[in-house]
Amino acid sequence: MSSTLNIGLVGYKFMGKAHSHAYQSAGRFFDLDLTPVMKAVCGRNEAAVKEFARQWGWDSIETDWRQLVERDDIDLVDIGSPGSTHAEIAIAAAKAGKHVYCEKPLANSLDDCKQMLAAVRESGVKHMINFNYRKTPAMALAKKMIEADEIGEVRHVRCTYLQDWLVDPEFPMNWRMRKETAGAGAHGDLGAHSVDLARFLVGDIAEVVGETRTFITERPAEGTSSGLTGTAGEGTEPVTVDDCSLFLAKFAGGALGSFEATRLAPGRKNFNRIELNGSKGTLAWCFEDLNVLEFYSTADSRQGFKRIIATEGDHPYMHAWWPPGHMLGYDHTFVNAVADMLQAIAQDKNPSPCFLAGANCVAVLNAVERSVESGKWESVEKID
Amino acid sequence: MSSTLNIGLVGYKFMGKAHSHAYQSAGRFFDLDLTPVMKAVCGRNEAAVKEFARQWGWDSIETDWRQLVERDDIDLVDIGSPGSTHAEIAIAAAKAGKHVYCEKPLANSLDDCKQMLAAVRESGVKHMINFNYRKTPAMALAKKMIEADEIGEVRHVRCTYLQDWLVDPEFPMNWRMRKETAGAGAHGDLGAHSVDLARFLVGDIAEVVGETRTFITERPAEGTSSGLTGTAGEGTEPVTVDDCSLFLAKFAGGALGSFEATRLAPGRKNFNRIELNGSKGTLAWCFEDLNVLEFYSTADSRQGFKRIIATEGDHPYMHAWWPPGHMLGYDHTFVNAVADMLQAIAQDKNPSPCFLAGANCVAVLNAVERSVESGKWESVEKID
Amino acid sequence: MSSTLNIGLVGYKFMGKAHSHAYQSAGRFFDLDLTPVMKAVCGRNEAAVKEFARQWGWDSIETDWRQLVERDDIDLVDIGSPGSTHAEIAIAAAKAGKHVYCEKPLANSLDDCKQMLAAVRESGVKHMINFNYRKTPAMALAKKMIEADEIGEVRHVRCTYLQDWLVDPEFPMNWRMRKETAGAGAHGDLGAHSVDLARFLVGDIAEVVGETRTFITERPAEGTSSGLTGTAGEGTEPVTVDDCSLFLAKFAGGALGSFEATRLAPGRKNFNRIELNGSKGTLAWCFEDLNVLEFYSTADSRQGFKRIIATEGDHPYMHAWWPPGHMLGYDHTFVNAVADMLQAIAQDKNPSPCFLAGANCVAVLNAVERSVESGKWESVEKID
Amino acid sequence: MSSTLNIGLVGYKFMGKAHSHAYQSAGRFFDLDLTPVMKAVCGRNEAAVKEFARQWGWDSIETDWRQLVERDDIDLVDIGSPGSTHAEIAIAAAKAGKHVYCEKPLANSLDDCKQMLAAVRESGVKHMINFNYRKTPAMALAKKMIEADEIGEVRHVRCTYLQDWLVDPEFPMNWRMRKETAGAGAHGDLGAHSVDLARFLVGDIAEVVGETRTFITERPAEGTSSGLTGTAGEGTEPVTVDDCSLFLAKFAGGALGSFEATRLAPGRKNFNRIELNGSKGTLAWCFEDLNVLEFYSTADSRQGFKRIIATEGDHPYMHAWWPPGHMLGYDHTFVNAVADMLQAIAQDKNPSPCFLAGANCVAVLNAVERSVESGKWESVEKID
Repeated sequence: MSSTLNIGLVGYKFMGKAHSHAYQSAGRFFDLDLTPVMKAVCGRNEAAVKEFARQWGWDSIETDWRQLVERDDIDLVDIGSPGSTHAEIAIAAAKAGKHVYCEKPLANSLDDCKQMLAAVRESGVKHMINFNYRKTPAMALAKKMIEADEIGEVRHVRCTYLQDWLVDPEFPMNWRMRKETAGAGAHGDLGAHSVDLARFLVGDIAEVVGETRTFITERPAEGTSSGLTGTAGEGTEPVTVDDCSLFLAKFAGGALGSFEATRLAPGRKNFNRIELNGSKGTLAWCFEDLNVLEFYSTADSRQGFKRIIATEGDHPYMHAWWPPGHMLGYDHTFVNAVADMLQAIAQDKNPSPCFLAGANCVAVLNAVERSVESGKWESVEKID
Repeated sequence: MSSTLNIGLVGYKFMGKAHSHAYQSAGRFFDLDLTPVMKAVCGRNEAAVKEFARQWGWDSIETDWRQLVERDDIDLVDIGSPGSTHAEIAIAAAKAGKHVYCEKPLANSLDDCKQMLAAVRESGVKHMINFNYRKTPAMALAKKMIEADEIGEVRHVRCTYLQDWLVDPEFPMNWRMRKETAGAGAHGDLGAHSVDLARFLVGDIAEVVGETRTFITERPAEGTSSGLTGTAGEGTEPVTVDDCSLFLAKFAGGALGSFEATRLAPGRKNFNRIELNGSKGTLAWCFEDLNVLEFYSTADSRQGFKRIIATEGDHPYMHAWWPPGHMLGYDHTFVNAVADMLQAIAQDKNPSPCFLAGANCVAVLNAVERSVESGKWESVEKID
Repeated sequence: MSSTLNIGLVGYKFMGKAHSHAYQSAGRFFDLDLTPVMKAVCGRNEAAVKEFARQWGWDSIETDWRQLVERDDIDLVDIGSPGSTHAEIAIAAAKAGKHVYCEKPLANSLDDCKQMLAAVRESGVKHMINFNYRKTPAMALAKKMIEADEIGEVRHVRCTYLQDWLVDPEFPMNWRMRKETAGAGAHGDLGAHSVDLARFLVGDIAEVVGETRTFITERPAEGTSSGLTGTAGEGTEPVTVDDCSLFLAKFAGGALGSFEATRLAPGRKNFNRIELNGSKGTLAWCFEDLNVLEFYSTADSRQGFKRIIATEGDHPYMHAWWPPGHMLGYDHTFVNAVADMLQAIAQDKNPSPCFLAGANCVAVLNAVERSVESGKWESVEKID
Repeated sequence: MSSTLNIGLVGYKFMGKAHSHAYQSAGRFFDLDLTPVMKAVCGRNEAAVKEFARQWGWDSIETDWRQLVERDDIDLVDIGSPGSTHAEIAIAAAKAGKHVYCEKPLANSLDDCKQMLAAVRESGVKHMINFNYRKTPAMALAKKMIEADEIGEVRHVRCTYLQDWLVDPEFPMNWRMRKETAGAGAHGDLGAHSVDLARFLVGDIAEVVGETRTFITERPAEGTSSGLTGTAGEGTEPVTVDDCSLFLAKFAGGALGSFEATRLAPGRKNFNRIELNGSKGTLAWCFEDLNVLEFYSTADSRQGFKRIIATEGDHPYMHAWWPPGHMLGYDHTFVNAVADMLQAIAQDKNPSPCFLAGANCVAVLNAVERSVESGKWESVEKID
């Protein structure tokens, strides 16, 4: 392997943009042993993908992901398309000997996840899933603090991921509201992030009981544009995924958890919040104030919730960025993730989090869905 | 009935103090048609209750609640003793023709609640339960705003009542940790408040699924003092109530809810928080910032969460208090509650909330307890 | 002196109500060696003062303060009337051998302050000024922390006291907007509190430079009611005090300060905020979140602003009140102040803060007024 | 002029990095009519500047800014070096017919500013100063709201720019603490931002009175590294600039202002805060929560401070970025600024803010310095 890594990206909308920016920036801010080369971006609409490639500096385009996966000049396939496409692309990429970087959720079904995991393991390629919120300095710092036993044994986990972009019943359909593409609604899109953060910080979830709901069952048909800011077409279309999901969880380590994801919480824009109460302290974080980690320690001589602004030079990732107090935003999480991935590959290690984390996350979501059917607690399948 | 109302109070610890202050203050701040007279306070420790009576201005004392209930010069019996005593006292008081004002939870069992409700109805006395958080100007304002349809159809209810006074495993036992006196732990003590606030603002809860847990199963024995700030005696004693409770709820009106109560959340002192997401807006409140009601409206021309400082002269209860921004505290909720009660009785109406609210609250807690046993969703019994 | 202290209160509006509540409550919550007796309240409108006495439990009334001061059964004169009346009443009370408790500002002129101080010293009576914000647990805790050197040498003092009740130009006149009664506007009313808090926590102010302004120079005439919530009469009246005041300060100890007081800050209801930056840490407090003291220490192993909820049992005044997290409000500051005063008198000590603090506070306000005239830095007269 | 613009950057430290990222990103996120080409970066240390060029993708390097300015293939000179160098470089660049983009403060003296302004005007080149905080969506939104009269006539301006990186007396010297390079300390570095934001939103400042102070007068000598995170060399060096600056201001439009800048406020990392109180409402913003604009309107039916998360698609600059709630950080302000600059140049307009804003900002800082000498109010020179 040379000191460059040729990237082939599938998808050029919201995630395509975020990933492209990450490839452009990672090597500027971080000292990396492997330089990403933006070799090709793939999408079905040739004109649109060409324009995207021009704007973002991709060397070439493809309109069929199969072509991309087969190209000799591609070292890593980055999958930023809807969840329904992940398994097929990832498995093909692995078989073609490409490293795979995949957006969350890993796949829309647990079976797909298992096959993806088997494929990357079999081929020996590197694999990573983009749970980008792990990559905020605040959450990475929380992980270190928990490992250093700063909050003791975790007893309570409280996760809410609230958005409001579907409150308006006139907001038109897009792929995120169709079961065949998205697999689930808030449950898969937002819940996946919460479950991963909780697993990252606290560990495995053993049992769950939950409920999902679709409050707005029909929406204006999709127009010409897509993405998060939609335009309406003619007629209506049924919504086939949930608007929200709630569940309780028993962690393998003994903690009790509460999870809620919704796209119908007016005023909550990207309210991805987690709070952990341990025997010695509390940690709390919310993406809407992403640079701040709240910390309460029973060991402090003066006790109170501390707002740690996680931008000090010795905080995770911050050596690469700005002086203290010069806040980071959403896209920095992608740059940090890509930097982590490139360094891991350069060192011939698997990046973290990998497909195993992705599969175990889907296993939790899957158990919740079974619980919605059964009306009782369901065990979470543990993927090793 | 004269223009005074003679009060007999049972209990002289935390709640006794809060109620005494309310009787002394209600008629000062509010223009009331009925003046409370602090006639007698009752407790088993004669020396202690005498000292309390002297300090707080009670005319006389009793050491047996049965004596108090029978006294001709008592018009209303106020029950501030542990939950295990509520039913017997309340029923006796009702039979003796006294109005009854009872601390929450109404009783430790649903059966007791039903009998209490039957007793007060049969005798025709007035009855009230002290869900004091309803009586903050912020929560009373929230009720008015919901009635005025300012947040539309409620879809999400999110309640957490978090404290941390039991995080220290050396904190000694008291009656609140014994099943025979308290009935339950955080579930009954804190959960009752959350359930009532949710029922007050959103309506009946139809089904629940939940879990409780005792993380610290043994504590130092109780010392000579009691109340919330304990001193330890010799040896240890098993904790027979829960440390925490979590449950999901389906409201009769269609909303989905999440509830959590714990005494093991470091840094959360009295974190009684509720958030409601409706089709047109959001309301959020937390007792740790009790004067503030957060409000988001999709109808605003500039949208954002609004911090309404609920101390304006036209906010509920505030005509009686101070100019805007001159904040209220914990004890004001009791004064407001007592003022409401006295005015209702003066007008020959039943105060709100009454035992029916208390019974329906216990019905929810009861269904959660059944769900903990069964591991599945349980219906909430509706008391009419 | 007996174990009771007979109080004679002058004034029965906003401050009369707050003081009356304090006398009723101090001995309930605190164990005091001296019990206040609400002997007489004085006001010019006989019907109104009678009604006030009835509602608040004062034994008798007077309509001329000279009568009150001369009564043999009065031990302490409490002055809650406008600033223009303070000097005459206080001096007469002192000459009559009564202790004096006076609302802030001590007087409208520095000369009056000096005469008041001379009078109480000559007669040997006890004297106290009601800078009630010192009496919040948070500010009292801040004082202890500064004395324990927790923030090191103070370099920056930042005070803003912002209200908005005069933003509406149709809000009618009252005595607080007339120079002859109030002496000054925001400068005296709000600025006095800020200056006192800064002096309490940091020490003497040596020099100031400042500016005042009246943005709304005329208002509807006063109606029949008064106080903070006014009703308009016919015609208009010129406003003869400032709407706002700003000044910079050099403290004797080396710190630099910034002060601002205004009644024209929309949304700021009682935004009495102070921040101190020292060589080792920062303290910040705002009355709109009065129970919280923010603290940053450079000595913490994890650094961040800590929200100390100043309601723990070992925080100042909290032994008398509620369990942690059961928040205090505005009126509690008056109860704490009265409890301090009564204990000091019982122990034959002068209460704190006394007229000396009141006089030195006015000396600062006075120097600012001179600076507004001269356009340059002015020295603050030091009263010993 | 072609559809590309060749950039020559002077300086490769903190600002060099921020500007380089902006040139790389502006054309990706924004649809620009002019594409920046990263032609050359200039610094005195050849090895360091070469390494910087490699990492950030600059085509070539120079070690003498005079060479850079003279190069035919440079269209715009971007000055990111210390303030003492701005005038000479900018004037030479203008004379060479290059557009000039300059970091703040425009220069260390008002005379230099005037000469710079004269030079760019004479040569007719475009000129811009990088007051990057104007370019947050929140501040740009505030500007629009003020123009739409949403807060009425502004009466109060309250600016604090607080940092703490010099609290540690062992933090070593760097160019920012030497008068010959930096001109001033917090006053010029931080105060310049506050003055510009206030002028941007409220208008000209007519008179000021202020004070500056150096609390820590000597520091360890500078080591081999520089920038904000220093390493110490041997011995000590006197600090020749202020640690802090405070001043009051009279705005030409009638408002009163208060300004404070310091590097000695423990816990305040980049606390660049501004609050404006108008006759109809209040706006408040702090960089430490940069995506949020607080807004209080007396016109709201429910009144309270509104937290506008300025990330909606119709908020300034947000069409180019992410969906609502996907927060921006520090570096986004530079990208927005560069995008504005490129579009203005493409349309043959002068970008905003230009050197005139830079000069008038320095005029305010200069008047404060005169006031520190004179001890009285000083007029601000108005540059047209």
